[in-house]
Amino acid sequence: MSFAQQSAHHPSSSAKLPSRTHTCGALHLDQLNQQVRLCGWVAKRRDHGGLIFIDLRDRYGITQVVFEPSCPDFQWAEKLRSEFVIQVTGLVRARPEGMVNPRLSTGTIEVVAQKLNLLSEAQTPPFAIEDETDVAESVRLEYRYLDLRRPYLQRNLVTRHKMLQIVRRHLDENHFIEIETPILYKSTPEGARDFIVPSRLNPGSFYALPQSPQTLKQLLMISGMDRYFQIARCFRDEDLRADRQPEFSQIDIETSFLSEEELFPILESMIQKLWKQILNVDIATPFPRMPYHEAMSRFGSDKPDVRFGLELQDLSDIFAQSGFQVFQNALAKNSRGIAGSVRALVVHPSATSQPSEQFSRKDLDDLTKVAASYGAKGLLWIKVQEGGELQSPAAKFFTDTEKSALKSRLDLKPGSLVLIVADKNKVVFDALGALRLNLGERLGLMPKTDIQNARAQDFAFLWVTRFPLLEFDDKENRYFACHHPFTSPRPEFFDDFIGGKNLDAIEASAYDMVLNGVEVGGGSLRIYRPDVQAAMFKLLGLTEQEAEAKFGFFLQALKYGTPPHGGLAFGVDRLAALLCGVGPIRDVMAFPKTQRGHCVMSSSPSEVDHSQLQELHILTVKSKSS
Amino acid sequence: MSFAQQSAHHPSSSAKLPSRTHTCGALHLDQLNQQVRLCGWVAKRRDHGGLIFIDLRDRYGITQVVFEPSCPDFQWAEKLRSEFVIQVTGLVRARPEGMVNPRLSTGTIEVVAQKLNLLSEAQTPPFAIEDETDVAESVRLEYRYLDLRRPYLQRNLVTRHKMLQIVRRHLDENHFIEIETPILYKSTPEGARDFIVPSRLNPGSFYALPQSPQTLKQLLMISGMDRYFQIARCFRDEDLRADRQPEFSQIDIETSFLSEEELFPILESMIQKLWKQILNVDIATPFPRMPYHEAMSRFGSDKPDVRFGLELQDLSDIFAQSGFQVFQNALAKNSRGIAGSVRALVVHPSATSQPSEQFSRKDLDDLTKVAASYGAKGLLWIKVQEGGELQSPAAKFFTDTEKSALKSRLDLKPGSLVLIVADKNKVVFDALGALRLNLGERLGLMPKTDIQNARAQDFAFLWVTRFPLLEFDDKENRYFACHHPFTSPRPEFFDDFIGGKNLDAIEASAYDMVLNGVEVGGGSLRIYRPDVQAAMFKLLGLTEQEAEAKFGFFLQALKYGTPPHGGLAFGVDRLAALLCGVGPIRDVMAFPKTQRGHCVMSSSPSEVDHSQLQELHILTVKSKSS
Repeated sequence: MSFAQQSAHHPSSSAKLPSRTHTCGALHLDQLNQQVRLCGWVAKRRDHGGLIFIDLRDRYGITQVVFEPSCPDFQWAEKLRSEFVIQVTGLVRARPEGMVNPRLSTGTIEVVAQKLNLLSEAQTPPFAIEDETDVAESVRLEYRYLDLRRPYLQRNLVTRHKMLQIVRRHLDENHFIEIETPILYKSTPEGARDFIVPSRLNPGSFYALPQSPQTLKQLLMISGMDRYFQIARCFRDEDLRADRQPEFSQIDIETSFLSEEELFPILESMIQKLWKQILNVDIATPFPRMPYHEAMSRFGSDKPDVRFGLELQDLSDIFAQSGFQVFQNALAKNSRGIAGSVRALVVHPSATSQPSEQFSRKDLDDLTKVAASYGAKGLLWIKVQEGGELQSPAAKFFTDTEKSALKSRLDLKPGSLVLIVADKNKVVFDALGALRLNLGERLGLMPKTDIQNARAQDFAFLWVTRFPLLEFDDKENRYFACHHPFTSPRPEFFDDFIGGKNLDAIEASAYDMVLNGVEVGGGSLRIYRPDVQAAMFKLLGLTEQEAEAKFGFFLQALKYGTPPHGGLAFGVDRLAALLCGVGPIRDVMAFPKTQRGHCVMSSSPSEVDHSQLQELHILTVKSKSS
Repeated sequence: MSFAQQSAHHPSSSAKLPSRTHTCGALHLDQLNQQVRLCGWVAKRRDHGGLIFIDLRDRYGITQVVFEPSCPDFQWAEKLRSEFVIQVTGLVRARPEGMVNPRLSTGTIEVVAQKLNLLSEAQTPPFAIEDETDVAESVRLEYRYLDLRRPYLQRNLVTRHKMLQIVRRHLDENHFIEIETPILYKSTPEGARDFIVPSRLNPGSFYALPQSPQTLKQLLMISGMDRYFQIARCFRDEDLRADRQPEFSQIDIETSFLSEEELFPILESMIQKLWKQILNVDIATPFPRMPYHEAMSRFGSDKPDVRFGLELQDLSDIFAQSGFQVFQNALAKNSRGIAGSVRALVVHPSATSQPSEQFSRKDLDDLTKVAASYGAKGLLWIKVQEGGELQSPAAKFFTDTEKSALKSRLDLKPGSLVLIVADKNKVVFDALGALRLNLGERLGLMPKTDIQNARAQDFAFLWVTRFPLLEFDDKENRYFACHHPFTSPRPEFFDDFIGGKNLDAIEASAYDMVLNGVEVGGGSLRIYRPDVQAAMFKLLGLTEQEAEAKFGFFLQALKYGTPPHGGLAFGVDRLAALLCGVGPIRDVMAFPKTQRGHCVMSSSPSEVDHSQLQELHILTVKSKSS
């Protein structure tokens, strides 16, 4: 009789002794001498001194099980291999002195087996079930159900679970109602393509999968639900970047009547609970509020990493009269009367380093490439020599007044390194913002967080507020809404907005929550006045008819008594990754896809039967160009 | 200056007095003389004695606001109309004696307005915002954002929210991990068609939307997650019946190692919490376990409504030797050795009714139609006369022995009515089961539940267990799995199953939770042994290659140490409707669709741009036949 046939193959259970009395992470000296029953996977097997030691693993931990020759099932224990699933009945015993494992929660005990019940055999897995692994990710994704046995991924999924429970409990306590919105919905593009679904019952018609529940949550405010939330599944058919997924989850929130300052504390306390309950870290509130313009001018980013300094310095006034063509071009006003700027990063010498020496020609070339990738035509560097002289390819263009102002403004010392970008503001900020982060890494200014021993100072939260409402596109020669066309200007700008004046200066009631240079959430107060909405569409170049055709019923809904409302969405995957202290969001998802939107495990997407397509009244078309 | 221009149009808020100090359902005599600020919709306006009374409504209730001529904003109050959104600042005052409204939680007070801030005007809604309404549902669906202002729907959504929080908290406490599974997945048909999604990045390939996370949750057990749950969105492209939606939510659950009897208590206590916390009703556990065969023979249904009797009576033995052709045919064994039966429902006389008189020719014809709709060739009735004689179209076929046995078995009295169906069992059970419910309604045996004052006896919960594993299809001349091909036979049947013996008698480890004749949840223990799985495919007529092609990677996964596992799914919409005491599931959903899968509000599904289809490499095809 084979092992498979011999064994009961069915977990034994009774009122006295259920299928499992404890998990594999539970037993301690408190349970000494108790008869227990465990279920789990054979993680390791060691034969030693005539005994068989099994590390029995489940989600909760590992328990050492010992088979002694006196055990009636000893011969069966000899057949155990990795990843076999077993049920063991036995007695809890203290491990001998030298065998205690302080790294295991169950490390002081072992279970001496009385009975072994084989539940399932296992083929040899294609990789070992261990946190440390160098098997290619594509293999792990193909065998994701084995990959998910690794404690690393299990811990991440458990953390994600805890996060969701804490979030919901907090919002429930604050009178938010969880409402499920449709996934089979209507195409309303939000900067990415929609996934669409052919309708069999309505040939030629398609549903679209929502990029977010934006219009639906606004409709729920119009319907008076007051406070809404959902862990909403969102879908975007974008060209995937390394850390993007075609579907992802958001903590989606909307409220009525609250100002920004009344909304923020609700979310800050949610963050406090998450950080306290998951990481045991006390996050201070309120978070700093940093207006967009300040974030850009100090850090070159609308999601600044404020864990370190190295702030941007504005040198435009110093070079206002400069004869240097590069600076002149940057500082000249464009056709819309807007000037660029000349800004710099400064790396000062320290006890251990001399940046002017440390940064080689190659380093500067690398930095120049970084700047160039953001559109900068060049990166101007200045090294401060031993005696205070400025060494630079552009040194000859600086007057003595300018050099003097520079030294004074930037507090230059021998050994300092200055990096200058001069261009229109967007290029300057993007380039210097990126360089700042690059330097932050190179110079070890970015703290490394040990998530197991996280401290409050590891986490720099802030709100970035007062985003610009509109962005002028030179190519298309018109304005675009920076966020979406339902984002409201701040009230102090209503008159200008409706009057179409000073458009570049108009600020939105838009806000992002930033953590360590990552945008974890963002939102805005919405337009709820028809005159403001009409002004927005006019500004965006949409006629009334075009707006009707595009947003149809939603514009209708706005006319029936729309409350002031606004909200926010947090990326669940991103937030979970931060709480887990891991990088790629794939590591906090059960079944992620690849960059081409493939699920390697299930081989989807895949072809479907022709008959299925026929029923749906569609045909696939071989593209002429790939 | 128009009203719109005059008003601040922006909720006033300050540290001292926020946008809103109280909801419209909060104020009591406790807040007398306090200055408060409320926001809401004008539900009603009454002008009386020179004063303007506004019923101000939000999700939490209604507060009466009084504008006296001395109020500086009185002239603006005169312009208020239904559904305008306003912010009011004022003082809390006790209502005069005669004006107290005991039906409102705020009915003892009113707010005397000091300041009015108009936030939004409203066009006249197409229907009044009231619970009682006779406007057509199609109009309400088109203006769903107004329909959702009705307290009836708001209460339902709040109840649904509460239900979900209670469910998650309970499962979290029981170590279940909430895991999100993909919606863009692979086609794995489960008795209905898949919705599919063309992939732009993979031309000619499609994702499918999951009909349920069945294989994914099993994979999570294989990966050792031990206990999983999800409020999972499921999609089925079926022909919609009156109360079906193309997408719906399930409480999706899976566990490892637990027997049925270890799993049930977890779910029973979940139900207890729901009924206690939402309806304040104490549900007794454990629920009765009724094997399938008993449910069928006693109630003619695998989801019996056990709130009343009127059980089916088996008369097969009495008519075993009958000369009546109808009975002979029913009782004869078919080619597979299975006989049908002769069964009856008996309605006895009571103090107030004589069924033999009460049921007219027309009534009996109606009942016959019901039976016929389930395949019965006829419905045989017997009326018991005053003196005990049996009046019936078939009376002449009954022997005296049979009549005597009948009277004794069924405890017949003058006035009793007997309804008999004789056929193969499926027809007998379906027909009599349906008749039983029909009679239950007619005779007032089905209790009407007042959900506001629900009592424990209003709710008859039970588990129906030991479902048959296989069903023989006469037309196709082969077996089908009653549930899905991964449902496990009960262990005592393993040998028979693997040996292919006594297949009709094999019971599955499958179970449904039934409430008042409605299946609220169902599931099974899964096959985890490769030999049992292979036997199942063989029985279903699938070759190894066919099984590979169909279930591919999942069969592979099963080979790597699959734990015994099983689970359940509950219909969220159905459960919410039961807890709300409402009928159609549309009334517990925010944005339901019509029977043709239309969202009336957003006009979806809809046509898409040709360019969008081109990008997706698909074409729509005008069908030649509609």
